[in-house]
Formats: sequence, C-alpha cells, structure tokens
Amino acid sequence: MAAKIAPPVSPLAPAGGFPDLPVIDGVRFASGAAGVRYKNRTDVMLAEISAGASVAGVFTTSATRSAPVLDCQAKLAALPQSGDGGYAIVVNSGNSNAFTGKAGDMTVEAVTTEVARVLRLAPAHVFSASTGVIGEPFPPERITSILEDLRTQLDPEGAEGAARAIMTTDTFPKGACVETRLGDTPVKIAGFAKGSGMIAPDMATMLAYVFTDAAIAQPILQEMLSDMTKRTFNAVTVDSDTSTSDSLMAVATGKAGNTPITDGTSPEALAFAQAFESVLKDLALQLVRDGEGATKFVEVRVTGATNEGDAMKVARSIADSPLVKTALAGEDPNWGRVVMAVGKSGAQADRDLLSIHFGDILVAENGWVAESYKEELGAAYMKNQELQITVDLGLGAATGTVWTCDLTHGYITINADYRS
Amino acid sequence: MAAKIAPPVSPLAPAGGFPDLPVIDGVRFASGAAGVRYKNRTDVMLAEISAGASVAGVFTTSATRSAPVLDCQAKLAALPQSGDGGYAIVVNSGNSNAFTGKAGDMTVEAVTTEVARVLRLAPAHVFSASTGVIGEPFPPERITSILEDLRTQLDPEGAEGAARAIMTTDTFPKGACVETRLGDTPVKIAGFAKGSGMIAPDMATMLAYVFTDAAIAQPILQEMLSDMTKRTFNAVTVDSDTSTSDSLMAVATGKAGNTPITDGTSPEALAFAQAFESVLKDLALQLVRDGEGATKFVEVRVTGATNEGDAMKVARSIADSPLVKTALAGEDPNWGRVVMAVGKSGAQADRDLLSIHFGDILVAENGWVAESYKEELGAAYMKNQELQITVDLGLGAATGTVWTCDLTHGYITINADYRS
Repeated sequence: MAAKIAPPVSPLAPAGGFPDLPVIDGVRFASGAAGVRYKNRTDVMLAEISAGASVAGVFTTSATRSAPVLDCQAKLAALPQSGDGGYAIVVNSGNSNAFTGKAGDMTVEAVTTEVARVLRLAPAHVFSASTGVIGEPFPPERITSILEDLRTQLDPEGAEGAARAIMTTDTFPKGACVETRLGDTPVKIAGFAKGSGMIAPDMATMLAYVFTDAAIAQPILQEMLSDMTKRTFNAVTVDSDTSTSDSLMAVATGKAGNTPITDGTSPEALAFAQAFESVLKDLALQLVRDGEGATKFVEVRVTGATNEGDAMKVARSIADSPLVKTALAGEDPNWGRVVMAVGKSGAQADRDLLSIHFGDILVAENGWVAESYKEELGAAYMKNQELQITVDLGLGAATGTVWTCDLTHGYITINADYRS
Repeated sequence: MAAKIAPPVSPLAPAGGFPDLPVIDGVRFASGAAGVRYKNRTDVMLAEISAGASVAGVFTTSATRSAPVLDCQAKLAALPQSGDGGYAIVVNSGNSNAFTGKAGDMTVEAVTTEVARVLRLAPAHVFSASTGVIGEPFPPERITSILEDLRTQLDPEGAEGAARAIMTTDTFPKGACVETRLGDTPVKIAGFAKGSGMIAPDMATMLAYVFTDAAIAQPILQEMLSDMTKRTFNAVTVDSDTSTSDSLMAVATGKAGNTPITDGTSPEALAFAQAFESVLKDLALQLVRDGEGATKFVEVRVTGATNEGDAMKVARSIADSPLVKTALAGEDPNWGRVVMAVGKSGAQADRDLLSIHFGDILVAENGWVAESYKEELGAAYMKNQELQITVDLGLGAATGTVWTCDLTHGYITINADYRS
C-alpha cells in the first residue's frame, strides 16, 4: 500500500484562498478530530443554531441514499410539528454511512440523540451528514465520545475550521459570503462546501451549508433553496456520477432583525434571493474548480432552445461527454464532438439552425463550420484555463448553463486505485 | 504534429483473428483506396446485392445525424415503392460527411447516383455510410472516380477486404458468421463491423453489415433487426457517447432456396432469429473488445428488476459510470461505486433488497457488505481480464445485460489529442 501524499492544490482554486467569513449571529461552530478514518486532522464539525431559526434542505435523489440523508429528509418533513428550540448540524468525513444496512440507521439515531442531549435540543432538530467510504461499519462512539469536548469549543468564528473538517479529497476548503440590505437592515450570508458529489463518490459527496442572520419564513427559504439548486449545485458536473449522500442545507437565524420575509415575491425576498443565489453559485463553481485532475474550468451555455429542460439537456450532454472533456484536456478545438454531444442529448435540435462559439469565436453555423473560422483561432483559444462553449440551437428563447472541467490523466490516476 | 504509429492490437481481441466468412450467394464485395483521408490503405467498400433481396436497417437516434444516415432512412422508408432490381451499399472511412450542411447532402446524392449508374441499379436502391472526421468538406469525386475500378473487382469472397476498408481507429477487423438450417435447407449468415460508435466518435461511428442467403420477407427482417439491436448493439457501451453516423444494415438474398419466411412466429423464423442474433451479438461484443484503451471486458448483468427498462437503466448506469470503470482499470473491487451507480440510475431500487456479485463471489446483500465477503476475494477476482458484475434488485423478474470495458490512461491518451 503506497503512502498517501497530499495532492497539490488545484490550479483552478480561487486566487484569494478561503474568504474571511463574517460571523452569523445565532450560529456557533466547533470542529474536532474523531479519528473516523483520517489521522492527524479534524473530521467532525458541529453547528449549533439558535431557537427560532428557519432550516431548509435539498438532498441527493439517489435510490440508495445514505442513512443520514434519509434521517434529514424525515426530520425536515416533520418540522412544522417538531416544536420550538434550537437546532444542530453534525457532519463527519471519513465514512459516508451509506449502504450500511439497519446498523447505519442506528448509528444516525445514536449520534443525533447524543448531540440533542449534549446541546439540550429536541432530537428531531438535529441533522447530520456523513461523507467518506461507502459500506464500512460506522460505530457511533467515534462521534459521540467527542461531543462534550466539541460543545465547550463552540465559537461564532469557527466556520473555517468546520469547512476544513468536512473535506475529503478536496484540495482546498470552499467558502463564500455576501452582505446585503433588506430594507434598512444589513444582513449577512455565509456558507461553506466540500466536493465532490459527482467528483469522488467513493469518499463521496457534495455537502454545503449556508447560514444567514436574515429573518425568513421556513417555507420560503425551502422554496428558494430548491429552485436555486437547479441553477447552481445541479448545474455543475465533473464526471456525471451522483453521490449517495449529497446534502445542501440553509439556515436563517433571523437575528439581523429585518422584518421577516413571509412573501416570496416581496422586494425584500427578491433582494435576499439574489444575494443567497450568489453564495450558492460561488460554492458550486468551487466544486468544479476542485474537480479531480481538472486543468480547465468550462462554462457550457446553451441558448435558443424551445424550453429550459432541453437547454439543460444539451448543456449537460456536452459537459458530461468524455470525448468533449478529453478534447478540452488536450486543448483540441474539436467542435465535431460538441455537435455529437448535441445530437445525442435527446433534446430537439436541427443541424442547419445550430451555431457554436468557443468564447467569442464563431466556430459553426448553418449546419457547417463557419466560413470565418480557422483552426488556429480555436487552438489558441483552447490554451486558456477558463473556457466558454456556447451552443445556440436556433429554435426558441430558452437558455441553460452547466459548469464542468476537463477529463485528464489525473482523474484516472486518482480513481483507478483510490482505496489502496 | 507527431507521426502516427499504429496502435497495438487490443489485448481483448478474439484469439482466432478474423473468421473465414462463408460466401453468401447473391452478394459480391470490392474494396479500394480512394485517399479520402488515409494514405496507403483501402478506405472504400462496395457491396453489390442481387435482385429480390430483403434489406433492413437500424440507425443512430442522434438529432445531428449524418447526411448518409438521413438518405438511408428515407430510402428504406420508400422501399415498398422503389421497384425491383438489385441493391448496393457503398461505405467509406476517413470522412463521416456529418455536419457538412447542404453540401454533404449533395455528396451523398452524387455518390449513390453514380454507384447506381455503374452497377445499373435504381438510385433509390443504393445505400451509403461514411465514417471519419466530422465537419470536413467531402467532395464526391474521391469516391466516384474509383467506382468503375471497384465494379471490375467485385468478388463473392471480398468480405474481409470490405471489413478492413471501413476501419478507422479499430485495432482489428471484426467478422462473425454462423450456419443453420431452415427446414432442410442450410443457410448462412455472415457479417462484419467496425467500431466505434460510442468509442471514438470523432473518427466516429459503429457500422455493421450482415448478409444471409436465407429468404425472409423484408418487414420480418426489419422487425427482427430492430428488436435484436436492443440486446446487442444498443447493449454495449465504451464511453456513453453516441455517433452521428451509427448504421446497422441486414441483407437477405434468398438464394439459399428455403421456403421464404413470411411469418415471424414460425419455427423457421425462430431458428433464423436465433442464428441471426448470435452474429449480431458476436459483432457487438467485438466492438467492446476494441474499446479505446480497454484492458478489461466486463459483462454487467441486472436481475430482479420490476421491468426490462429498469434493468437496462441500472446496467447502463453501472457500465457507463466513470468511477466504476476507473475502479475496474485499477483492479479495485470497489462495490461502493456499484451501489452509487445503482442509486443514480433513476430505476426503482431498495437498499435492503439489493445484492451484488463479482463473478460467483457474493459481495453485498441485505443493504450491506455480505458477511462471507473478504476484500482479498474481490481483489483476486478483479485481476481477471474478463469480468462479470451481477446486481440483483430483489424486486421482480426482469433482467438486462450490458457489456462494457474499463476506463484507462490509454483512453485519455487516444482522445485528448486525437486530431493532431
């Protein structure tokens, strides 16, 4: 078994490093080393959330969802009946507690019950997530034995530590924040995420947690989160694989003191939504930037579709195509493969109406290569680290965008013998 | 631009080499070097088929189908009205004539019209296919200028030459044959194919041509071909990409003298179907064996599904998953990734009913790793060149099988800079 060497930080990582996340009034974080799988690093994070907060979540659609995901979904569905008091979120890396049978369900119950006892909360208010190897036994004691210790370390400034504790194969921690005003009241939104969901489903999972001090009714927060997921976390892909544990949760503590948002169409709701979506999108794009082996960050934009579903089908077909992604890795302006991916998508398309741009360069139109196009132009453009492929279907007004990365030898190396 | 070196023959190639295909009475082949793209090799094949034959075809479902595909589909649809006389098929490698606009349509018309003139056939009886680079101009003269020469070389024993002329990135020519009896009459079926369709869609395309001397009515031949495609050519995948030019054609000359098959449920029809499907399957599996960079041949078998659609969804999800395929490349018995692929397939599944076998080794059951399973067993099994992954969903009686190969550094090397 070869010794593990930490992989170099992705060349696509944001230049500024982890942002200085603002304190969100009503949320405290702690992180610790439970030795779930990793040695010499933190692997558990605990978030304590004040009473009266709104909590929302979106989860993987996998038919083999992990035990923590099933538990979170059941608790969120029961929220209106689960009473007052604060909330908590407990997350570990190193073991996904997925495909661990009934024993896995019992571990979730043991961990969340103990968090509730330690923090004096209702067990129905404690959410959990686990990310790591699938199918390995996961004794709850690993986590429960350090909970008292975590409680004493709870800190409003602990978000970065929490973001680091939930990392698995990530090469950098991912955070994002924004401040805005609702009426006259300043509000803050801060979140963190880990890859990789579709990037490394063995030590699997995309996890993201976003916190705000804004006051917003739970159903509206949930509706926003579900809707925005389509354009952010569900619009990124690294290798088209989907984890058994993907979880995205949003928490609004209401401590900012704004007039609570209870109408999703009010100016305040729209202002909040815009700021909130910018944080989700920032985190989602960082997942792509940390794609295994990635050397190119690629935006695939589809315009002129008859409907949004078709636009996303075409964008996803291009962004997921191994042949498009290997061409990107080779800096090959291989627009024929883009045509192939449009064709196989299942969406309505017409050869003679299609046009393709690489960045600002018109590559193909009217069913053939553009007269103005020269291979040298495409080849020079492909040397950029950040690329944009635009396909106009010429059929309607609907658009869709998906972000992806290239498929390189690095991806094969990382995944061909990951567990040894 | 690096000099091209012929890739080594796939380690998964059939041991016996190209089979000794029997002569099919009523069919003659010729092949020649037109210099479409390749130098010093043949790149055009012509098949002349006797009057009275039944001709059937199945083609790519891509929305950006090539000009030859569109022409074949129109001509097959018009067959009942297109009169008597013989048929021809003309195929070139080196240029796919896909995404070549109206000029591409005109090239197909020019080539098929000239074949008709040279062989004294109705133009509506001449089918064509092209495989190679997408989007490059394709002047018909390349082909038409050698047609007279090809006519003089037509030979009942020319099938292997034809199989070689249509190769692109294939590392070996692919042929299959079988003999059977319909009543007392011996009949022969012989075919050849090239990869790669989903294997190398830039020099794209899966092409297959199967010939028999059996007498069978055209609608029954077409129905059999369409049905069998699901279990053969549509049940293999290398990288989930689909070509703009995939074409499968079947020709029955009727020269064997059997009582013509006009009832698809007769004993003769069933006997013919069995033999016919064995040839299609043999050719389809050879495509996987020649998958780019492949070092493992993998059968993915799904049982216990509620319906056949779900069984194939799960099988395809496993067979297409980059994470499953990289684990196979690394000889890693990573059954967690199989669970992940089952979960993301969209088919109905229940964690606690699922079981997984690697070959005869029970790996997981009842929603968790099997008690009898040991990692060493799985690791030893994975060293085989031919692998079988079986997933029982435990829900119903439907089954489905898909064949695939592993995803290796070889695939990246071949595709990351294919055109230079």
